[in-house]
Amino acid sequence: MTSISTALSASLQTLQTLDTPTAVIDVPRMRHNIRRMQDRMNALGVRLRPHVKTSKCVEVARAQAAAGAVGITVSTLKEASRFFDDGVTDILYAVGMVASKLPAALALRRRGCDLKIVTDSVASAQAIVAFGAEYGETFDVWIEIDTDGHRSGIRPEDDALLEVARTLHEGGATLGGVMTHAGSSYDFDTPEALAAIAEQERAGCVLAAARLRDAGLPCPVVSVGSTPTALAATHLDGVTEVRAGVYVFFDLVMHNIGVCTTDELALSVLTTVIGHQPDKGWAIVDAGWMAMSRDRGTQKQKHDFGYGQVCRIDGSVVPGYVLSGANQEHGILSREGEPDRDIVTRFPIGTLLRILPNHACATGAQFPEYHAVEPTGDIAVWSRLHGW
Amino acid sequence: MTSISTALSASLQTLQTLDTPTAVIDVPRMRHNIRRMQDRMNALGVRLRPHVKTSKCVEVARAQAAAGAVGITVSTLKEASRFFDDGVTDILYAVGMVASKLPAALALRRRGCDLKIVTDSVASAQAIVAFGAEYGETFDVWIEIDTDGHRSGIRPEDDALLEVARTLHEGGATLGGVMTHAGSSYDFDTPEALAAIAEQERAGCVLAAARLRDAGLPCPVVSVGSTPTALAATHLDGVTEVRAGVYVFFDLVMHNIGVCTTDELALSVLTTVIGHQPDKGWAIVDAGWMAMSRDRGTQKQKHDFGYGQVCRIDGSVVPGYVLSGANQEHGILSREGEPDRDIVTRFPIGTLLRILPNHACATGAQFPEYHAVEPTGDIAVWSRLHGW
Repeated sequence: MTSISTALSASLQTLQTLDTPTAVIDVPRMRHNIRRMQDRMNALGVRLRPHVKTSKCVEVARAQAAAGAVGITVSTLKEASRFFDDGVTDILYAVGMVASKLPAALALRRRGCDLKIVTDSVASAQAIVAFGAEYGETFDVWIEIDTDGHRSGIRPEDDALLEVARTLHEGGATLGGVMTHAGSSYDFDTPEALAAIAEQERAGCVLAAARLRDAGLPCPVVSVGSTPTALAATHLDGVTEVRAGVYVFFDLVMHNIGVCTTDELALSVLTTVIGHQPDKGWAIVDAGWMAMSRDRGTQKQKHDFGYGQVCRIDGSVVPGYVLSGANQEHGILSREGEPDRDIVTRFPIGTLLRILPNHACATGAQFPEYHAVEPTGDIAVWSRLHGW
Repeated sequence: MTSISTALSASLQTLQTLDTPTAVIDVPRMRHNIRRMQDRMNALGVRLRPHVKTSKCVEVARAQAAAGAVGITVSTLKEASRFFDDGVTDILYAVGMVASKLPAALALRRRGCDLKIVTDSVASAQAIVAFGAEYGETFDVWIEIDTDGHRSGIRPEDDALLEVARTLHEGGATLGGVMTHAGSSYDFDTPEALAAIAEQERAGCVLAAARLRDAGLPCPVVSVGSTPTALAATHLDGVTEVRAGVYVFFDLVMHNIGVCTTDELALSVLTTVIGHQPDKGWAIVDAGWMAMSRDRGTQKQKHDFGYGQVCRIDGSVVPGYVLSGANQEHGILSREGEPDRDIVTRFPIGTLLRILPNHACATGAQFPEYHAVEPTGDIAVWSRLHGW
């Protein structure tokens, strides 16, 4: 049996062999996050349909399915195709369908994919039923509900809800359900506010479903979700499934919102110190915005982490040190507040560090693959989907 | 001979066949930009070494070489390898070298690549000469000069300059020259301020070269550059070459700085309207931040374009309409100032639009390939390098 200290040093040795910058997944943390969310959904009595837009990685989705997830949510039809190739059949494409994308959706269904699509307008609903009639395909369509005003969807009380539903139902599509995403949950950071937005998301989507059923229309699925609301909801009565994505890795934005600790952040960028500006207290690292992404999601939160939180190679946080600036391939590492006059000796050239990202979905997207590291030092290269 | 209107409609027909979102290069605009910069460098009597970090695309670099560019600048060793495979031998890797990257640099040189590397510290200079001695390789090393305090480099008057130079020279490396990048030029937007920072960049780098030569050290190359300073410099006495990248596409940041018109922006993202929120005056498009990048480079400039300027499919600007918000695969299109109550009829579902990006380097990076469109309607798929 491997002792903890042996295992730790094994994974550190592995990290020291990697070219930088690279995206590293701490596999035990990822498994913990998957377990945490699945347990919570089980306790709340709903299915979990992970949003794979965060990882875009089949190995990650397999771990989610192994823990009990049912189906996946995708943000592009390329994701749908790739994950279907990997054996996932129950797929929700959660971006409003338009006529020009129907041929690709049809092709997936003809290959045997149980693809669900989404709409929030009569115009698109008409396009879907017309195309379905032309090609003899019964699309499974969910209506997108707007429960917080942040983006797309029909408000639960809006007459357009029934109009769209009837267009689909009478046009021969399968009316599969209603779905919503309270993205504005990212704007809150207290348990009370998060519980309130979770309840608003739940109640609005359940109301939309009730209106459809009261009108004699089918609505088997009631799908809600975002990582903060999934973790803050006190109950999910009337909901059948939850969608969430970023929980699989978590990130600094989620940490500021208050739904995870930094010890739960499973994605980091491994980087090398390549220079200094001692007078300014800067170390220059080879993780710039091309590695971290330009996402500054913590800028307006309670703790602005710049382009990321600095950690030692073992993943432990170096308190007060962040990437305060970024050019394409240069990151500027500095101490918050007073400059560190000992920066050169603290982080000599060649030092390997890990940077926790603001937003895991955005940082992951900068890399063609992840290095997934086990405590044993075993490492796997997991490919990540890029483009559309 | 094809008339302009026939050609225009041919390229529009081509664009209508593409899946969205996709990155589109307007090839005549790109050629114009390449010609403009090359003519200017010719007039100033210096070589142009384009920075390929903007396009990461061999077809673009070939067009730059065909117009007269000499060699390239790269931001990663993966770029160096890819462009060397395409026949480019004179390559400057413009990010500070560290020991862990020397084996990859050596491998490139052993394959016949005339790779130049960069340092700004005694520690890295020592690592380079020690590694060179161990493997019998004479590295060609340029010293990075800090002419504006924005990032890396040694200040021209700093004693460390001679110390690093002697470490390299006496250690057996080829002291190839000095290089600087006045990245703070992005902070200015008047011709006078840009000319002043260009002169500061030139004078600082020339001073560093003079100090080396006065000390009896070689300094054949004096390399400066950024797109704004290259276009603003009134003379480049003492400079041998200029490096610039983003000019090949230009972008809204460069437009705000004042070095290009929106008619010169050669990169755009083709997108489809997928929905509306009529009460708010929003159209929802399928170009979110995954397509545009999270770069908000115009946020603190004189005109904040949100996530991009909206154009018709023919590339003409729709004044006052921008992407005011972005989620991963959803962009929120709205009018600046008062909401547009006619948004649904102005941009019906299915409408194809083109979005000009804040920052071409960042937006390009979101795509595995470009669609390069000629006025004839001819279209080519140009692959783009991703990762490290």
